[in-house]
Parts: sequence; structure tokens; C-alpha cells
Amino acid sequence: MNFNIPPHIQKLMDEIREFVYEELIPLENSRLYGGHFGELLPVLREKREKVKSLGWWAPWLHHEWGGMGLSLTEYAHISEVLAHSPLGHYVFNCQAPDVGNMEVLMMFGNEAQQAQYLRPLASGDIRSCFSMTEPGRAGSNPTWLDTTAVRDGDEYVINGRKWFTSSADGASFAIVMAVTNPSAEKHGRASMIIVPVGTPGFNHLRRIQIMGDEGSDHASHSEVEYVDCRVPAENIIHHEGAGFMIAQARLGPGRIHHAMRWIGIAERALALMCQYAVQREVAPGRPLATQQTIQDWTAESRAEIEAARLMVLRCAHRIDELGAKAARTDISMIKFFVAPILQRVLDRAIQAHGALGMTDDIPLSYWYRHERAARIYDGPDEVHKMVVAREEFKRYG
Amino acid sequence: MNFNIPPHIQKLMDEIREFVYEELIPLENSRLYGGHFGELLPVLREKREKVKSLGWWAPWLHHEWGGMGLSLTEYAHISEVLAHSPLGHYVFNCQAPDVGNMEVLMMFGNEAQQAQYLRPLASGDIRSCFSMTEPGRAGSNPTWLDTTAVRDGDEYVINGRKWFTSSADGASFAIVMAVTNPSAEKHGRASMIIVPVGTPGFNHLRRIQIMGDEGSDHASHSEVEYVDCRVPAENIIHHEGAGFMIAQARLGPGRIHHAMRWIGIAERALALMCQYAVQREVAPGRPLATQQTIQDWTAESRAEIEAARLMVLRCAHRIDELGAKAARTDISMIKFFVAPILQRVLDRAIQAHGALGMTDDIPLSYWYRHERAARIYDGPDEVHKMVVAREEFKRYG
Amino acid sequence: MNFNIPPHIQKLMDEIREFVYEELIPLENSRLYGGHFGELLPVLREKREKVKSLGWWAPWLHHEWGGMGLSLTEYAHISEVLAHSPLGHYVFNCQAPDVGNMEVLMMFGNEAQQAQYLRPLASGDIRSCFSMTEPGRAGSNPTWLDTTAVRDGDEYVINGRKWFTSSADGASFAIVMAVTNPSAEKHGRASMIIVPVGTPGFNHLRRIQIMGDEGSDHASHSEVEYVDCRVPAENIIHHEGAGFMIAQARLGPGRIHHAMRWIGIAERALALMCQYAVQREVAPGRPLATQQTIQDWTAESRAEIEAARLMVLRCAHRIDELGAKAARTDISMIKFFVAPILQRVLDRAIQAHGALGMTDDIPLSYWYRHERAARIYDGPDEVHKMVVAREEFKRYG
Amino acid sequence: MNFNIPPHIQKLMDEIREFVYEELIPLENSRLYGGHFGELLPVLREKREKVKSLGWWAPWLHHEWGGMGLSLTEYAHISEVLAHSPLGHYVFNCQAPDVGNMEVLMMFGNEAQQAQYLRPLASGDIRSCFSMTEPGRAGSNPTWLDTTAVRDGDEYVINGRKWFTSSADGASFAIVMAVTNPSAEKHGRASMIIVPVGTPGFNHLRRIQIMGDEGSDHASHSEVEYVDCRVPAENIIHHEGAGFMIAQARLGPGRIHHAMRWIGIAERALALMCQYAVQREVAPGRPLATQQTIQDWTAESRAEIEAARLMVLRCAHRIDELGAKAARTDISMIKFFVAPILQRVLDRAIQAHGALGMTDDIPLSYWYRHERAARIYDGPDEVHKMVVAREEFKRYG
Repeated sequence: MNFNIPPHIQKLMDEIREFVYEELIPLENSRLYGGHFGELLPVLREKREKVKSLGWWAPWLHHEWGGMGLSLTEYAHISEVLAHSPLGHYVFNCQAPDVGNMEVLMMFGNEAQQAQYLRPLASGDIRSCFSMTEPGRAGSNPTWLDTTAVRDGDEYVINGRKWFTSSADGASFAIVMAVTNPSAEKHGRASMIIVPVGTPGFNHLRRIQIMGDEGSDHASHSEVEYVDCRVPAENIIHHEGAGFMIAQARLGPGRIHHAMRWIGIAERALALMCQYAVQREVAPGRPLATQQTIQDWTAESRAEIEAARLMVLRCAHRIDELGAKAARTDISMIKFFVAPILQRVLDRAIQAHGALGMTDDIPLSYWYRHERAARIYDGPDEVHKMVVAREEFKRYG
Repeated sequence: MNFNIPPHIQKLMDEIREFVYEELIPLENSRLYGGHFGELLPVLREKREKVKSLGWWAPWLHHEWGGMGLSLTEYAHISEVLAHSPLGHYVFNCQAPDVGNMEVLMMFGNEAQQAQYLRPLASGDIRSCFSMTEPGRAGSNPTWLDTTAVRDGDEYVINGRKWFTSSADGASFAIVMAVTNPSAEKHGRASMIIVPVGTPGFNHLRRIQIMGDEGSDHASHSEVEYVDCRVPAENIIHHEGAGFMIAQARLGPGRIHHAMRWIGIAERALALMCQYAVQREVAPGRPLATQQTIQDWTAESRAEIEAARLMVLRCAHRIDELGAKAARTDISMIKFFVAPILQRVLDRAIQAHGALGMTDDIPLSYWYRHERAARIYDGPDEVHKMVVAREEFKRYG
Repeated sequence: MNFNIPPHIQKLMDEIREFVYEELIPLENSRLYGGHFGELLPVLREKREKVKSLGWWAPWLHHEWGGMGLSLTEYAHISEVLAHSPLGHYVFNCQAPDVGNMEVLMMFGNEAQQAQYLRPLASGDIRSCFSMTEPGRAGSNPTWLDTTAVRDGDEYVINGRKWFTSSADGASFAIVMAVTNPSAEKHGRASMIIVPVGTPGFNHLRRIQIMGDEGSDHASHSEVEYVDCRVPAENIIHHEGAGFMIAQARLGPGRIHHAMRWIGIAERALALMCQYAVQREVAPGRPLATQQTIQDWTAESRAEIEAARLMVLRCAHRIDELGAKAARTDISMIKFFVAPILQRVLDRAIQAHGALGMTDDIPLSYWYRHERAARIYDGPDEVHKMVVAREEFKRYG
Repeated sequence: MNFNIPPHIQKLMDEIREFVYEELIPLENSRLYGGHFGELLPVLREKREKVKSLGWWAPWLHHEWGGMGLSLTEYAHISEVLAHSPLGHYVFNCQAPDVGNMEVLMMFGNEAQQAQYLRPLASGDIRSCFSMTEPGRAGSNPTWLDTTAVRDGDEYVINGRKWFTSSADGASFAIVMAVTNPSAEKHGRASMIIVPVGTPGFNHLRRIQIMGDEGSDHASHSEVEYVDCRVPAENIIHHEGAGFMIAQARLGPGRIHHAMRWIGIAERALALMCQYAVQREVAPGRPLATQQTIQDWTAESRAEIEAARLMVLRCAHRIDELGAKAARTDISMIKFFVAPILQRVLDRAIQAHGALGMTDDIPLSYWYRHERAARIYDGPDEVHKMVVAREEFKRYG
């Protein structure tokens, strides 16, 4: 066993962290925290160019598509340092749901689809969205969907309602999960289909107001209605009935990206708490850091973050070595292990800051609100616990 | 001992709860949850008139000032049912910080102050704000303030910076806590002074953006700078150096109001969770309510809410019987006991709702965000624990 | 509402607490904590006489049977102060399972049974045991039992295996729960039958070694085998098939007794922690009580104990007013609310004592071990949460 | 990074685990769990011979002293599998406090001391004890001791009282920590001195009754009084004033041994819970494993154990690479991170077993009781949190 980060990755992490602190964190402000991501697009475009010129574009992406070609484990470290700012992943073209969509198109898209959709995504010229969750059905049960895509000649006709179609605002196309084979067994019912955003019947209803703001552009989550929405039959990804399988394949690496992002956020929150604690006085000459409760929170946060990181890295390592399927239990485990740690660290950091922690003068409240979803999306923690337990019980017949 | 609610109070609770559900909850929407309270002012004015006509105006307020004259324990029950909607307290003229300011003026204001400020507050014709917390000093230590009020002839000249001056937007006057006697012992340094909002040198800097929105009107928290702000010397409340004493006297009943408000919120959150659980299916024919985890959350929430209510009511009863000073430890105890319960209940309700819980389509996210402050304001929970522990240790010398 | 303890009960509590501290706590020693209760029987007999002479015998018991005739709510207070010593309940003839058995015989026994079994139990001349839980069946499901009692002429023939037949060592008779009507609906299958301990076929297998010791006499839990054990048919209590109903009736008041006992233990543990904290120094001149963590534990324990007590007293009050059936949900609620509080308070007290907390030089370890069962017996907490949740869901259809 | 266990260690783990399950676990019984370790000495002696013959003796010990010469990281894995039985470490000569004492003698003992004391310890011919903690002083502050060793000619005269002198019963010698240089700065006051058990003035007062039993032989903790106890001056280890430094050096690897032992115990507890859950029915045909709460406990336990193991292994790896001093913060961190996990896993396993979990028919109660000390010994968790927090704050000045 070897717990050391390889020196070339450590160097890259250090450089990128510096970039994040020098170039991105200064752009943060309460407008951003209040949901106005879109206002920053012009300056973020410049930063993206700078990232490209530094050779750091899309570190997770294969060389052939213009990325750095890092392994999942290597990229995991980078995802963590990018997460110190809410702007990091976007500027490096590592943002969800585009990353997931690119992976889907790389793995399962045909050449034409790759040329038309993957290429401009990879270069950052367009954005995309992912349309799976439905307001009327439990997100924890991805085999139970109401949206249908019915083959009609050379087209699919899509009908249904989706929400949490993240980043639909400003996207060029959606990948839609819809039932094409209702009578198949439940894992073979749905397919993934590419729907260009301009298509008639793709009705963008609203950016959902979430935790106080409706967001904008990439940083938003939409409700979309599909009403007799017709797309060419060749827009199907892989083949009919492959939807569930593709969704699962999309999850593994995505979980690593997310979980390392959570850890990066937790690191910044802990840093903010410590900085504040050593400098803020509760009485003349008595900094907050002298309070044992603050010390407890600091120590517990440090330990939990370290444990979380090791868990995620081992999982990444397993996916790199054995594939996502073999690491399935690990992938479920890091979900419910890491997300609550992020929430606890943020909660402690807010409490340590007192009234300031409630304000959007600092980023804690932003993450406290929007990362509450970490325990929910991609299947709530409760579902992943069942998965892990079932696996554990199997050992005992 | 007798744990039964008196029938006349039970009747009043039932009627007011019905009013809240029929008249106020239908007014709630995502604009309100997103901070746009001010938009509702016209309709809320009508509802206030209706409340007056029903004889329910300001239940906590003495008859002579136009209220119902309930005891603290009696009003506690009403505060709970009002809290089922974020609009309840305002419509019944029970909203902080006006309630606290009215209490201060009733107890410590002179006749002229009562005529000029208390009378129109009591009738709901004006609003007020309370200017105590400073960005540069720990809110947990109310004896350490930088704002000064220097006597200059018949005036006080106030200089300093305050934030979390709640409801300053649209208020007619502020009660400001400022150091008048810097060389006195620490509990006798500060005074409370009335400052009309138009006074030169009362500089409203901003509504602070908090948890994603800056709020509006009554539902906002401002940062205010006092720059050579001159007010007549007779605007002092009670006498010089009485500030800390008045602040303490203000806290006891206020804590009851808040804590019962938290319990009312928790009740609505639990109701939302249960309603959703019995109706939302995780698989065909299998409602969420069949999941043991949801059952656990429901049972634990029920038990914690019941315990919290009993603790607050006993505390109110003690204040009614023995005064706030004698109940000091109880007042500290309900702070750190009840606030985390509210947070846990809200957290469970959100998790049970999945993605929906993140949205402002329902009120959970609003409370999750803004009631996070419950563990912070009026002294963070950690400080109140020290108070209770110190009292406990005293028994053992 | 009125949260004041009636003066005559307060006076009685004070006197009995003093008795417990003067007469019983000095008898405690590591032999007792190690399971050798039986060694104290001679001195405990004297103490029992003293209690009788003071007029405090069996405070929960009706006058006609020689007790003080307190209401459930009144006795609840007494049960708390008795619990400050592991010897309290026994010396006052309030010990489980005799209390429960006496209640069963009072409510459901016929005159002959009362004369033969209740009378000497009430006077403390004999002891009894309760034989319900089976090693092979889940205690959480009292309708699923393997032990049978088959009618044969004027006798019942009992076969089966029971464990956690508490206090069987030294008991004169057992009340046995056995299936008499296997084809009845599940709540009508079992009956309760009195089995004198000398009866052939009542085979006492062992005092089960529990948490390190096998206990002795009253303070022990036995495994008993019934092999063709014949008793007269008139030994049945109430009537055939009434077993489940009687068991339920037995639970309500018993839960109050237990829960108040837990609270008394928690009070003594908190007192031990505070005494130690104010006197033990972690560095010269720095008592443990100056540590914020100890302060937190103290404050949280105080708040939790207060909340627990209010919950139990309200439940007792409801049973007194409306009967156990109407208070069913409350009875379930106090189970899973109070038991974990006891465990947490004990855990904190041990941790505060450091190495000393592990030893049997003080009673914390004894309760830490044996009261771990509080979360298990009378149905594990998890089952009671389901009961409360089900009730809550009912409000929403 | 590489998270794979080296194949030769994996093979060794598998073989030793099998040995533990085949040869040692069958020896366990309620007598052992009740503190009667000594009764098993004859059969354990045979097992030790078998271990020697298999080439597995003292895996942590250097070849030159007869061990397997594993690195700390390698031995960590073995310590885990040994811990599946309370007998494992003893049979492999890996038991505390002998391991720590051997390390001290290897690192700091002179040749004569090594010949006389280390050699027979290493071969398992004698046992030893470690006499540091004092009843009158906080164990969390190892620089504050009352026991003195005064130089008198060629001898030291030792006076003082120690407790938790583990394994003194049957030991041949003690290593005693005593103040030799009271006026030195606090880390240089104490020394470590070898005291043969027969020495006059070494008064064995008692095996302390701990959590219900006083234990026996190796598995016991004694209170010892030193009354004018004279030993040759050459019995001092290293040099005068080196006591604190040696104690610290002893801690690092010891912490790894302990923490991996805790993880092994947690693994067996989890296995017991799962086995029981899949086989025990709560209703006909409904095994306990179908309960979501049991699934939660299983999944959380699995995740926490995995995280704990990674943390300990990384710490071991750092000690192997950089030394114990450089890994100091990690060593503190695993203390307060791993010990509560063990406690939680044991608690869940007991709860899942219901009444059976309370009994000494299975080992859960034994560990629940005696491993409660894990959060206390070697400095309570609270102290280690301070250490970690202090280090964290340093980054921010």
C-alpha cells in the first residue's frame, strides 16, 4: 500500500489550487452566491482561455478530445482543488452535467453523435443538459418513469415532464431518458435520446427556484415539458433499452467527481473556520480558537475530511483498476459517507462564524443551501445504504 | 401538575390555526420564500384588519395597548399556531423585533416615549428596528460594543456600525444600544436610545444578503452606520447605563415567542413530511410511509417536538409565576434544546421530500435557510450551554 | 397548565431521597455492582422494616393491599428518587417484575389467586418472576410464542423454554405466558398462568450471565425450561386467551416506573459528574469543570433529563386521567425518547471520570452495563418508533 | 497511490484469520467474557507453541528477538485479524502492555536490561506490566505525577500509588514512571524504572473491579502501591528525565496496534450482526435483515470500518516512512476517530441481537464493556482533539 500522492499530481494540484485562489476566488461575490452565475460569463470565458493556454483544460478528458487525459484517481485530486471555488469546475470544463454527458457520448455515442455533440462540448463551445428526473416519480427509483418516446417512422415522439434538468438554461441539447420499450423487463424499458434545445415541443417551463434563488445559465435547474417533441431516430444513444445501463455507467466516475468536489468545499469551509477562529476575539485577547468547542469542531472536521478523501480515492482507484461495476458497493458507500460530512463541516463553520456565517459575504451559506442536495441527488443516501447492506448480507447467505 | 391546555386557549388556538390555514397559507409562494415579503404588504394590511375585527390583535399585548392581554404561557400556544405560516406573526402584530421593542417601551419607556413610539407600534401603524449587534464584535458578548453615544448638551451623538438591525427597511425608528459610560463596570456601560430613522447620520447601508436573498421590508436585516447621529437626550430609555439590564429583560419573553415559533414551524414541517409520505409512492403501491427510515424520522420528530414544547411551556409558566430572572437557566436551556430540534425536523422533512424538498415550491427550504439562525441569534447555543453548566456546578460548590 | 409538583409530594420526595442517601447508598459497594445483590439481603430486610415503619411501603400500591395508594403521577416522582440507588426500589417493594405481577393480580386475578399470591407479594414475604420472553422468538413480537399450555382435565400441561425470566432465583412463583388457543387470531392465542416454582417440570436452567455477571436473587435473569409442567387449571389468570391483553395492560404503568427510574439514575450520574468536575484538577488549579466539553455535557444532560421527565410525567398524567389505552402512543414515545438519554448521560459521566469511570468503585459502570437493556426490553426502541409513526400517519389518511 | 494489500500479507492474514477461527474462537466462553482469562492459560500455552511452530510468533517483533519482523503497516493488518478473538493477541505474543514494554526495552534498554528482561518477554516466558497512571492525577496530563523515585546511593527509592497497572497479576516486572527530577521543566521530570515484582515495597493492592469483573492474570488491571521500594540505579531506562520522551515514543506504534485491534473487533461484531440478521426472523418468513434500520446499521458500520481502517493504515504508513514524531497529528486523529466507531458498531450489534446481545453467550457484551475504555486510555479523545486542532490552527497563524 502506498498513500503518497504522486509528485507530478501534487505539483499540478498546487499549481491549480494557486490558480483557483488567485484567479477565481477574487471573482466570487454575493451576486454569485445569490444565483447570478450568468453575470460572470464574460470574465469566465477569459479564464477558460487562460486555462487552455496553461494546458489544464478538462483534466479528466482523454487527449483525443482535448483534455489532459488523467486517470480517474488523478483527476479526483484535481476535482478537489477546483472545488475551493464554486467557479472552478466550470472554468476547467469539468462541470456537471456536461462531464457526464461527454462520458456518455464517448462511451456510447456513435461517430456522428460524437462529431456533432461531443466535439463542441469538449471544446467548451456549447453546453448541454441531462433530463431524467421527473416531478411525478421518485428519483430513487430510476426504472419507474412516465416520459415516453414512441417510434414513429424515422422519429421518436417524446412526451413527458422532467425537472432538475440541470443547466438547461443556455444549453444546446438535452440527453433525455424516456421509456421506449414499456413491456420490457424494468431495466430495459428506457432509452437515452439526444434532443436539441430548439426542437418544437421542448418546452422550457422555468428555472426552478431552489433554496431561495432560481439560478442562471449553467448554475440552474429547469423544469421542461416534452409535448409531442419529435427527434430523428438516429438521436438514440447506443440502442433502444440501453438507458438504464448507460445511466449506471454514468454514475461511477460522476460520483467520484462529486465526492471530491464535496471534499474541496469542506476544505475551504474548514480553512475559513480556522482563519476566523484564530483572528476573531470573543473577549479582548481571547480568540475564538481558544474555545474547546471550536477545537472539537476543527479536529472532527479534519478527521472526517481525511477519512472521506481516503474512501473516495480508494473507490477511484478501484474503478481505475477494476471498472465501475466491480466498485459498485464502494460507489454507493462514498455517497452516504461523504455527503453528511460535507454538511456537518459546513454547519460547524457557519456556527463558528455566528451571524456572519448566515450572510452571503462569505460562501458558506451558498454551499450550506445548495449542497444540501448532496444527500439527495443520484439517489438519496438511504437508498445507497440499502445497496451496501444487501451486499454485506450476501456474505452470510 | 396539570398538562392540559385550558379549554378557552385550546379554542382560540383552533380558531387561529384555521385562520392561518385559510387566510395566510394560501398567500405563500416562491416569491415570498425568495425574500419578496414586501410584495404582500397590501393584502397583509387587509388581513391585519380582519384580525383586529376578530378580536385577535396582538394577543401577547396588554389590553390597555390594544392587545388580547394573554399571559406569556397562554400566548406561547398562540405563537406556535401563528408560526405555521411565515406570515402569521406579522399579521397578528406579533413580529420581532417590534414585540421586543414594545415590551421595552412598556416596561421602561416614559410616558412621552410611549405616546410617540409605543402607541403607533401597538396599533400596527409603524414598524421599528433594534440595533445592537455589531459586525466587529462577537454577538455572544453583549458587554463588548464599539458604538458610542456621547452626551453633548441636550443631545447624544452616536457613532458606530451595526448589522442585523432587523426590519430596518421601512421602519420608523430604531432602538440603538450604545456605550454611554465607558468607564463603568461592564454591565453598566451601555444605554438604549431611540433614533428616528430619518435622523441625519443614520445611514442605512444595505439589506444584508442572507442565505441567498436580501429580503425586504419587515423580513430583512440591515447594516446601518451611525455617523455623528444626533438625537435628543430624552430619547434615552430608562436611564444611562441601563442598556444591558433592558436587553436581558427583553430576552426572556422573546425567547418563549421564538421557541414556540420554532415549534410551530416544526409542526408544519412534520405535517408536510407525513402528508407526502402517505401519498408519494416509491414503487407502484408502496408509499414512502412504508419505509422504516421515514417512520423513524416521523417518530423521532414527534417525540422531540413534544419534549421541546413541554420545555418551553414550563419555562413560560415559570416566567409568569416567578419572573424572567428566576427562570434564567430555563431560558438558556430552551435555546440550545429547541433550536437543534427545529433544524433536525426540517432536515428530515427535506430529505423525505427528495428533490422537491430543495425547491421553493414548498416552504421547507425557506425555513431550512433562515431558521439556521435560530442556533445563533440571541447568543449562540454554545454560550447558553455554559450558562446552564455553571448553574449546575454551583450545586456542588 | 401547571408544572409545579404538589407540596405534599415534594415533601415526600425530599424525605425519601434523604433516606436513600443516608440508608441505602452507603450499602453500595463493588460486590453489589459485580452482581452479588443476594449478599445484602439481611440488611435490606432491616431497611424494608424501617420503610414500613415510616409509612412508605409500596407507595404505588393501593391502601387495601398495604401500600401508600399514590396515583401513577405521584408515584412517578417517588420512583425517580428511589432510583438514585440500585437498592431503592427493592427496599420499598417497588421492584420489577413483582410490581407488574402484583398489578396483574390486582386487576385480573380472582379472589383465591389474590389471597394466595398477591397478599404475600404485597407484604414482601415472597417474590415472583415473569416468564414471557423466549430465546427462539423475537421479543419484539409478543404474539409469536412457542411455549404451549395444553388443557388436560383439570390441569394445564406447559412445555417450552423461556429466558429473561427475571428474578426467578428465589422466587415463589412465576406468571407464565403460553399459547393455549393456537388457532385463535393472533392476539387471542396466549394465556397467563401461575406456576409455583416447586412444580415438577419447572426446570431452572441457569441465571444467564449478562454483561459480565450472572447476578443473584432478585437481581438476576434466568433461563427456565418447562417440561410437561402441570398446574391446576384454576391457575389461569382472567381467562384463556387473555394473555396478550394482560401483557399490554401491564406495560403502561410499568413503562412509567421504568422511565422514572432511568431519570433517577441519570440524575445521580449527572451529580457524580458535576461533583467530580468541580473537584478534580486537570492541571494545578484548573478543575475539570473549566473545560468547555464538560460544560457541554453537563448542560446537554440537564436539558435532556428535564425534557425526559416532563415527557414521562405527562404520560403518567394521561394514564391517570384517560387510562393506559388512550395514552398508548405516549407510552411508546417515552420508551425510545428516554432510554437513549439515560445511555448518553451515563456515557458522558463515565468519559468525564476517565479511568475511574470504568471501575466499580463508583456505580456508573454498573448502570452503563445493565441499563443498556433499557433500549431493548419491553420491545426495542425501533418497534416503538413504528407505533408512533403509524399513529402520526393516520392523521393524513 | 495504491490501496491494495500486498499479496504475501493478504495470504498471511487469511491464514491467521483461519487459525483464529479454528483454534481460538472455539475456546471462548462466558467464563472468559466474565473475566476468568487465567483458566485458559494451559490451553493457551499449547496454542502459543503451535503459533511458534507455524512461524507466526510475535509478527511485529524484529527477527533478532524471535519475531516475524513485519513493518508497522504490515503488522497492522495482522493485528486486525488477531482481534477477532479476545485471545488472539495473547496467543501471538502481541498483547499490551508487553508489546509496549518490549519496544521500550528494544529502543532504550541497555544490553543488560535487554538480556534480563527483553529476552524472556520476547520468548513469552514471562510477562510484564506498565505502571504509569495514578488514581490521584489526571491521566490526560502525563507530566503531572505524584510518584517519586529518589536516588539514594546506588538505588532509587520509589514511593507512590499507581493504578491501571495492567497485567500486574502474574507479571515478573513493572516499568514504573516516577518523578526523579522535580525541578526540571515538566517534560523532563519523570523517568522510567524497571521494578521486579518481588521487590519489597511493591505492594499489589488489588485487581481493580472494572465493568463488573476484576479479571485475572494478563487480563486484569491492578492498583499498586510503592512504599520505599528500592531498586538498583541501573534499572533506570535510558537516562534520568527521559520518561516522558519514552512514553511518547511508546505511544505511536501502540496506537496502531490498538486501533487495528478495535477494527478487528468491529469486523467480528458486524459479522455477528449480519449473520443474526439474515437468520433471525421477526415474523414467520421475515428475517431481521429485511428491516431498513438493520440495513442502515449494517451499511453505516461497513462504511465507518472501512474509513477507520484506511485512516489507521495511512498513519502506520507515515510512521514507517517518516517516524512517529512526524505522524504525531495522525496518531492523535486515529484515536478519537476510530474509538467511537468501535463503540457505535458494538452498540448497533447489541441492539440488533436484542436480549441475546446483553448476554455473555456471545462476545458483544464483553467488548461493549471493556472496550468502552478505548475512548479513555492513552489520553481521552477530548485531549487528542485539542492536539489536532492546535496543529490545524497553526496553518493560519
